[in-house]
This record gives sequence, C-alpha cells and structure tokens, in this order.
Amino acid sequence: MSTATMLISCPDQRGLVAAVANFVFENGGNIVQSAQHTDHGEGVFFQRVEFETTGFQIPNSEISQAFAPIATRLNMDYSVRFPTDVARVAVLASKQGHCLYDLLFRFRMGELRAEVPLVASNHPDHEGAVGFLGHDYSYLPVVDGDKAAQEKTLLSLLEAKKIDLVVLARYMQVLSPAFVNAFPHRIINIHHSFLPAFVGARPYHQAFERGVKLVGVTAHYATADLDQGPIIDQDVVRVSHRDSIEDLIRKGRDLEKAVLARAVRAHLEHRVIVYGNKTVVFGV
Amino acid sequence: MSTATMLISCPDQRGLVAAVANFVFENGGNIVQSAQHTDHGEGVFFQRVEFETTGFQIPNSEISQAFAPIATRLNMDYSVRFPTDVARVAVLASKQGHCLYDLLFRFRMGELRAEVPLVASNHPDHEGAVGFLGHDYSYLPVVDGDKAAQEKTLLSLLEAKKIDLVVLARYMQVLSPAFVNAFPHRIINIHHSFLPAFVGARPYHQAFERGVKLVGVTAHYATADLDQGPIIDQDVVRVSHRDSIEDLIRKGRDLEKAVLARAVRAHLEHRVIVYGNKTVVFGV
Amino acid sequence: MSTATMLISCPDQRGLVAAVANFVFENGGNIVQSAQHTDHGEGVFFQRVEFETTGFQIPNSEISQAFAPIATRLNMDYSVRFPTDVARVAVLASKQGHCLYDLLFRFRMGELRAEVPLVASNHPDHEGAVGFLGHDYSYLPVVDGDKAAQEKTLLSLLEAKKIDLVVLARYMQVLSPAFVNAFPHRIINIHHSFLPAFVGARPYHQAFERGVKLVGVTAHYATADLDQGPIIDQDVVRVSHRDSIEDLIRKGRDLEKAVLARAVRAHLEHRVIVYGNKTVVFGV
Amino acid sequence: MSTATMLISCPDQRGLVAAVANFVFENGGNIVQSAQHTDHGEGVFFQRVEFETTGFQIPNSEISQAFAPIATRLNMDYSVRFPTDVARVAVLASKQGHCLYDLLFRFRMGELRAEVPLVASNHPDHEGAVGFLGHDYSYLPVVDGDKAAQEKTLLSLLEAKKIDLVVLARYMQVLSPAFVNAFPHRIINIHHSFLPAFVGARPYHQAFERGVKLVGVTAHYATADLDQGPIIDQDVVRVSHRDSIEDLIRKGRDLEKAVLARAVRAHLEHRVIVYGNKTVVFGV
Repeated sequence: MSTATMLISCPDQRGLVAAVANFVFENGGNIVQSAQHTDHGEGVFFQRVEFETTGFQIPNSEISQAFAPIATRLNMDYSVRFPTDVARVAVLASKQGHCLYDLLFRFRMGELRAEVPLVASNHPDHEGAVGFLGHDYSYLPVVDGDKAAQEKTLLSLLEAKKIDLVVLARYMQVLSPAFVNAFPHRIINIHHSFLPAFVGARPYHQAFERGVKLVGVTAHYATADLDQGPIIDQDVVRVSHRDSIEDLIRKGRDLEKAVLARAVRAHLEHRVIVYGNKTVVFGV
Repeated sequence: MSTATMLISCPDQRGLVAAVANFVFENGGNIVQSAQHTDHGEGVFFQRVEFETTGFQIPNSEISQAFAPIATRLNMDYSVRFPTDVARVAVLASKQGHCLYDLLFRFRMGELRAEVPLVASNHPDHEGAVGFLGHDYSYLPVVDGDKAAQEKTLLSLLEAKKIDLVVLARYMQVLSPAFVNAFPHRIINIHHSFLPAFVGARPYHQAFERGVKLVGVTAHYATADLDQGPIIDQDVVRVSHRDSIEDLIRKGRDLEKAVLARAVRAHLEHRVIVYGNKTVVFGV
Repeated sequence: MSTATMLISCPDQRGLVAAVANFVFENGGNIVQSAQHTDHGEGVFFQRVEFETTGFQIPNSEISQAFAPIATRLNMDYSVRFPTDVARVAVLASKQGHCLYDLLFRFRMGELRAEVPLVASNHPDHEGAVGFLGHDYSYLPVVDGDKAAQEKTLLSLLEAKKIDLVVLARYMQVLSPAFVNAFPHRIINIHHSFLPAFVGARPYHQAFERGVKLVGVTAHYATADLDQGPIIDQDVVRVSHRDSIEDLIRKGRDLEKAVLARAVRAHLEHRVIVYGNKTVVFGV
Repeated sequence: MSTATMLISCPDQRGLVAAVANFVFENGGNIVQSAQHTDHGEGVFFQRVEFETTGFQIPNSEISQAFAPIATRLNMDYSVRFPTDVARVAVLASKQGHCLYDLLFRFRMGELRAEVPLVASNHPDHEGAVGFLGHDYSYLPVVDGDKAAQEKTLLSLLEAKKIDLVVLARYMQVLSPAFVNAFPHRIINIHHSFLPAFVGARPYHQAFERGVKLVGVTAHYATADLDQGPIIDQDVVRVSHRDSIEDLIRKGRDLEKAVLARAVRAHLEHRVIVYGNKTVVFGV
C-alpha cells in the first residue's frame, strides 16, 4: 500500500483534526491510521496521520509544499514521509555485541526497515561478524586518549555516509555536546538502568548495592546532558537476593536488546514526537 | 469540561474522519480526544471521538439526531453520550467478596464513575458491609434448586432498577442464554483463567494440575456460550512449583480485582466497541 | 500442621546446613521447607527452615534455648517462631484509604494472618469504616504543628497495644529517627516510586515531569534516612503520554496495594532477613 | 570453584535433609547452594544441592557410588554432575532462524555453557551463518514426503555426535513418539502459545481470531503427546486491537527467544526435575 505519514505538532485550537482530514479527503486520499494527543497542561496538540496516496491528486514530492498554507495558518510543525524514504542508520557498539547483533539480525530479517551503511566501534572485535552480515565496519580506536580526534573521525564518517539515525548499541564512549547537537533527536541510546535511577557508570553495580528487586533499562534520545534525554521506552525484569551482579547483567542484556529495538522501530516508523524533554510515542 | 463522546463503527471508506471532524468543527466544537482503528481484514472502521460541547451550536439532546444524516450516508452505527449520562450498575457476587468490595471502594472514591443501585448475591454474607457502604443488597438464594425462579427475580430487579451494566464480580451462578441476551454487551464477567485456557469450573485447579508457570484472568462480555464472549482485558502473574492451589487462588484474586476494574472502567468511559467476538478498547 | 520456623544468619562456614538439619532430625522433627542463601561477597549465610513439631522431643518453649549451644559455636543470629505467635499489627494511614482498606480486607478474610489492635491516622475520615470492620481507630491530629507531641502519643499507643509491626499504609507524616529506631526492621512503608528514583515528595508528579514510561512503587523497612531503607518488594506498571498525573496516581494505587500486601505477608510469614541495607526474602 | 551438583527426588520422610547434609559435611565438603521442595499432595521430596569438592575426601568419579547406600536406604532417585560434564547440545531449526541465532550467540558469549556439535534443519538457509559461527550444519530435507527416513537420519546423527540435549528452536517438523522417547526429558521445545491455550498449528493466528489481549509462549519438554509435555517456563506480552497477526508474530519472536533460552539454561544448570507431567525448577 502506498502511503504518506505526517507528524504534526502545534498549539491546541479548534478545527485541527478537521483541517488535516479535509486536506487528505479533498485531494482524494484515505486515512488509514490516525492518532492524536493533546497535552492539556502545555496546550500542545500532536497528531500522526497515515493516508493512502494511491489516487491522491498531489504527487508525493509536492505534498509537503501543498500542506504548507494550512500549517502556516495553524502554526504547525510538521513532516511528511513516504515508504520510499528509507532511513540510513549507523550502529555504534563497544566490546559487548549483544545489542549490535540483535539489531543487525532484525534489519536482516526485515523486522526493522532501514539501510545500515555503517557499523562503528572503538573495538576491533566485531569486524568479522559484521562483515559477514554485509555491513561496513569502521574500527575507530581512541588513540593516545585523544577522544576528540576519534569523535571527529566518526562524525566525518556519519556525514560521508549521509546517516539519518545513530543507534548507540551499548557504545561506552561519552559523546561531546557538539556531537550530540549535530544529530538532534536522531541519536538513540540504551541506558542500562530504569532512569532516572542509577545515572552514570555501572548502573547494574549500583542496583546490586541498593538491593533493588527489579532492574530496568531505558531507551532515550541522547542530549548534551548525559542520561537526561527524552525517554522513548523502558522495561524492567524481576531480580532477587539470589541474583549476583553477573545475573543482573545477564538479565539486563535481554531487556536492553528488546527495548532498544522497540525504540528504534518506533523512530523508524515515524511514531515518535519529542517535545520539551518528553516523547509522544504513537501506537503504544 | 462539558464534552460529548461518540462511538462509531462502519464499513471502511474514504472521508470518514473528515466527515466526523467537520461535523464537530462546523458546529463550533473542539475535538479533545480522537482515536480510530481500521480492521483491514474485515474492512471495518472504528472511531471514538470526544469533543467539547461548551459553545457547541447544537444542544446535547439533539446532537444524535443532527448527526443522523451523516451516519445514514456512511452506513454508520453510532452512539453519543454525555457526562450527565451516569450509568446504573448492578454488581453480582457469591460467597467471595474480594471483587465486590474492590469495586464498591473504587465507586466510593470516585475512581469508577457510576451509580450502584443494586448489589445482589446468592449468599447473605455481604449484607452488612454492603449496607454500610450505602448500597441496596438483595439476597437471592436458589431455593429447591429452582435456578430459573431465582434468575427471574434477579431479572425483575435489574429492570426495576433500570440497570445499564451488570458486573459479575465472581458470581458463581451460570446465567441462562435468555438472561444474557437481555443485556447484550452489557454484562461483564471476570473469569479466573487466561482464556481460552481452562474454561469451565475450577480453573485454578486445572492450572495447578497442568503445571503452568503463569496463571491468568480474563474480563469479558458474557454471551450465551459460557467463557466464549468478547475479551476486554487479561493479565497474568508468575507462579512456580512452590505455589499450592491456595497460592494460585490468592495470587489470582489480586489479578481478578485489577482486571475486572479495568474492564468496567473502559466500559463506563465508552472506550469499548464490540464487533464479532472481539473488542476494540480505545486508550489502551 | 504444628511447625516451628527458624531464621538464621551467620558467617559462612562448613557444616551449617548439617548442624541445623541434625538438630531437627535428632530431636524427632521433619523439615517441611528449607531455603538458604549465601552472599559470597560478604561471606554471610542465611537460612529459613520450617519443621514439624508434632512428635518433637523438645517443647516449643524450650527450642530456642536448646538450639543456643549450636548457635554459639557457629556464631549464628537466630530466631524461632511458632504458629501460635500471632503478630500484633498497627496500620497507619492518612487521608487516602486504599492501602488501609485493602490490608484490613486481607486480614479479615485470613489472607494475612495477624491481629490488628490499632488503626491510627492524622485524619478522622476512616473512623466509621474501620470501626465497622471491628478495629480500634485512633484519630491523632497534629495540633498547632506540634509533630513531636503527636508522635509521642502514637508511640505510647503502640507500646500500650504491644505492637510488633507498624505498617505505613500511605501515612504521609514523616517519622522522627527516634521513632523509627524504636521499631528496628519492624516498620514497613510503601513509597510511591520505583526507588531510588523519585525520592521525597510527590513522586508521581516527578515521574510525570520526567516523562517516564513506567511508574513504580517500593515497599521497604523504614530507617532514619527517609526512603533509603532495605527494599522488600517493588513493582511497576506501564504508562504512556496519554496518562495524566491523575492516571499515574490511579494506576499507582493498585500497585501500592499489591506490593505493600506482599511485603507485609513476607514479614508476617518470617520470610525476610535484613542485612546491611538489603533483604533476603525467602520464597520469592 | 570446583563443585558437585546433586539432584534428588524420593518419597517424603524424616531426615532427608540431614542425610544429604551429613554426607557432604562428613566427607569434608561445603554446601554452596541448597534448595528443596516437597509436594505435599504427592508426598514427594525434591532437592538440589551444590557443594564444593575442593578438599572433598571422595574423588569425583566415586561420589555417585559412595552416595548409593544412602540413596538405597531412603529410596532416592539421584544424579551427580560436575562442571567438567559439559553437555553436548543439538539445535534443530526450520526456516525461521531467530531462536537458532539467539541461542548460538548465547553459547558463543558464554552465557549458556555447552558444546554445540550439531545444528540441523530441514531447510538449507542457515548453512552459511551457522558455519561462520563454527558449528556443523546438517541440511536434512524431507525427501518425497518420507518423514520417517529424515527422522532416522537425524537420530543417527544425534547418536553419532553423542548428543545430551536436543533443542527445538522453532523446528516445525512433528517428531514421532519413538524419536521423542529416545530422549526422555532431553528434548526442549518452544511452543508459540501460552499452553494449554492454542495447541497445534498456527497459534498466533488462533490467538488473533480469539481476540486475546496477551499472547504467550511456552518452553516444555517434548513428549509423545504433542504440546502436552512438562512446562519449564512461560511468558506473555500485551497486544491490542491495533496488532495484526504479523505484529503478534513479531512480538512473539522476542518472547520465544527469551523463554527458550531461560529453559535451556535451567536444564544445563541442572535446576530442573521432572515428575509426572510437571517440573520443579530450582532457583526460580
């Protein structure tokens, strides 16, 4: 089915749903899915609308422009995407490969739909396996402690490969604010705690010390403030006094894989709108 | 906030969302919440739309009629409800009172919004407590095994009290098809298994015998076929070899209370549409 | 079945299980349940053992003394309890009654086994209902801001009623360190967040502001450091952008009831050992 | 740490725990972990005990024989295993590879400890990837519908490779009773429903038709009766009216991987005892 997906946010006011629905209807489209949300506290309206473009009187390349007058009148931020807009994703990993391989397998089997022109890591370990799976692998070590140089190389690669989304699949290097700001709401990180509990390093160790009865993980957009970005998804698993730190780490790995994949999927399906430090995730 | 809530279902076709949105917008309303769903296999469209009626040009009492031409043209089933339409609920229980008291407490504190003019039971046990909580209690024993007579009395009471929704809060008497058909999609039952597993009597005992590692409960609309009606909500809890049948029953009680309350809440908030033997539950 | 339940903790060493098992066996007992745990990091051994006392050669009143030589030799902390040792519980609540009534209903139906000679509150609201349920209700307002005076009255009551366990069922008054220290590991609190996230006041509001996708609750022993005590149990429920603060509060209530009841049950069944700031909870 | 792990089951009677603990203690061992369970309905006692063998006075190869007199006296079934007993596992898959690759990755990273001398499939698809990962791959197509011949070849391979455990990682060929009986309680299958709901073919389709609000999966030992064997682990995930059959299948895949891995792990760690059609899974 040929469709267009619009994401809209604007100040709440009367007639928003009608304006969008009429634009679609009057041009011969059919709304396949629509979801909206109003944050009454902030007075902000959010909508995701997906409509069939077969028979639509405006060609895909002109839809955004054709909608502009409505958006201007209603003070809307909006974007339009088509199934032909396949995102280009870079996956960054460190020593641990569980999230990396999990994602690559999901891309390979078509569960996640994107191109992956780049896998990069500060460790050489995954070169063989990633190559076998058909992706370019860039081994980017931090040489002589010069993190800035490594990050610069990485940034060049991301630009050269025209990357739309960066996925931090347990990438253990802290990114500079400049780097993060170069990809606003386009870097997804998996943090191995139930944020805001246990920010920073070694969260499973912190959780073990505190004696919690559940451990969690959080997928969020990276921002300049470490572990403070808008949360996309979270989940937890039960632990007990019987579980050692190694058990927490092992149980956490399964969560990390699942939650990161759900967040990446939501992003790739244009189901996430960020506002302030929060997210609206449609279809959840 | 004064609002109207419409539930709509109809064959899928172009312009449905626009038709509803325009009806609201052109009469001066503001859509507060809207959710839609299309079952592409069945070709059926479902929508729940809630709009502010302050300033709406049509009085509440005439909205349904004013919408009728649109509904006729688009072959829609629809209903319109207002906050002033407070449902009248009857709660039926047997010996065990956990679901009954849980519901009454939720009504009392305003978490569930309805009037409860009747609590009925085939046991006398709850008379004091229910009376203390301010509800009428009808003790309806089955005399000489004459279930039909008991059911007839119950039916008269429900009619006399103008009951909109019957909640079977672990009511252990099987209802006749005639009784069930008198309240189509207006009887909610809590079955103490994860349907369709363990239909019929003593599901926790069945679950124990089978050695399952989770036990579940199911809230569903009662139909003439026992335990076969449209499912509104379900949930499960983990059990192990350590758990006796008594432990399963105890753990299940907490699920029964929570899941039944969620289902009743969804119904009272006009978030459920039944089609075939399934439900669309908006806001989940 | 007549049984004795022993809770043991001591430095880890050889022969601990054998020493306990032989004590039981040689005196004619039969171990019904036994669970042990070793914290290898700390080198501490924990055991809970329950044995039949029918036919046991030592009368209940002398078992503790008879075991003392073994405990001394192996440097054990231990306690012995019998089904006849019914705990005396005080439940403290404030304006909100959901945890209070939930607990009282569980005591009433025998799910939780204890006597409840005292319900106390800084609000008068629950007097009627608690009285109807057959418990004494002490309305203890804070007069002229004199919290110390109110706490002193409360402490006198707890002592007069010989209270073994204090349950803070959403009791919103901060307790002084002196009060808490008077009941070491004998005050259970329910905190309405997934600790250590959102310590302090209004955790649901904090959670809403942070945009989390799950909200949680924590049952823990109260210590002089607020919200820092040993955790007994935790749980979470999924929320989304659709949920208002009121929805978080509502969803949280169901968690609070369930998790507090599980923690109280574990304590009353002598399944909890506190060590450092952690708990071993046997049977989980 | 050098340890021995014993699994014991026998008729319940006095002195069982003491007999085992003394055997360990008197020969110079130290119990590291011990868990026991009594099925009071059936009168059966189960125990898993793990003890240090460093300094134990009986060499590993003679421990089983040395324990025999105790076992005979108390009518015990028992087994003794050592860390050096590394299980030999065969993984069987069909077209879908998600469970297969998930397991191989866990073996590779040491999360699951075993040798995997054989991966077999009725499809050729996984040959390259499995070879890359360093395992032998046997493509065993069913030729001319002769399932018996294919199964015979498979059985020969399993015997030649001295396989201890067969894992059906979404292997879609029905196994004959003779085959299953050749590996009693040594074949683990993952069924993609919450058994006993939706036995047989296409359970996700059945679940979709029934309109359930959760879908589940079940890991169990294969028995001659299809989908009826002893359950080792189960789990569920929430679905809604928005989820298509494809969504159920996708959500289910993550469950299948996690639950199958947990069950295989429990088996390899000697934490499972089967009795009747149930399991005791220690450490859960």
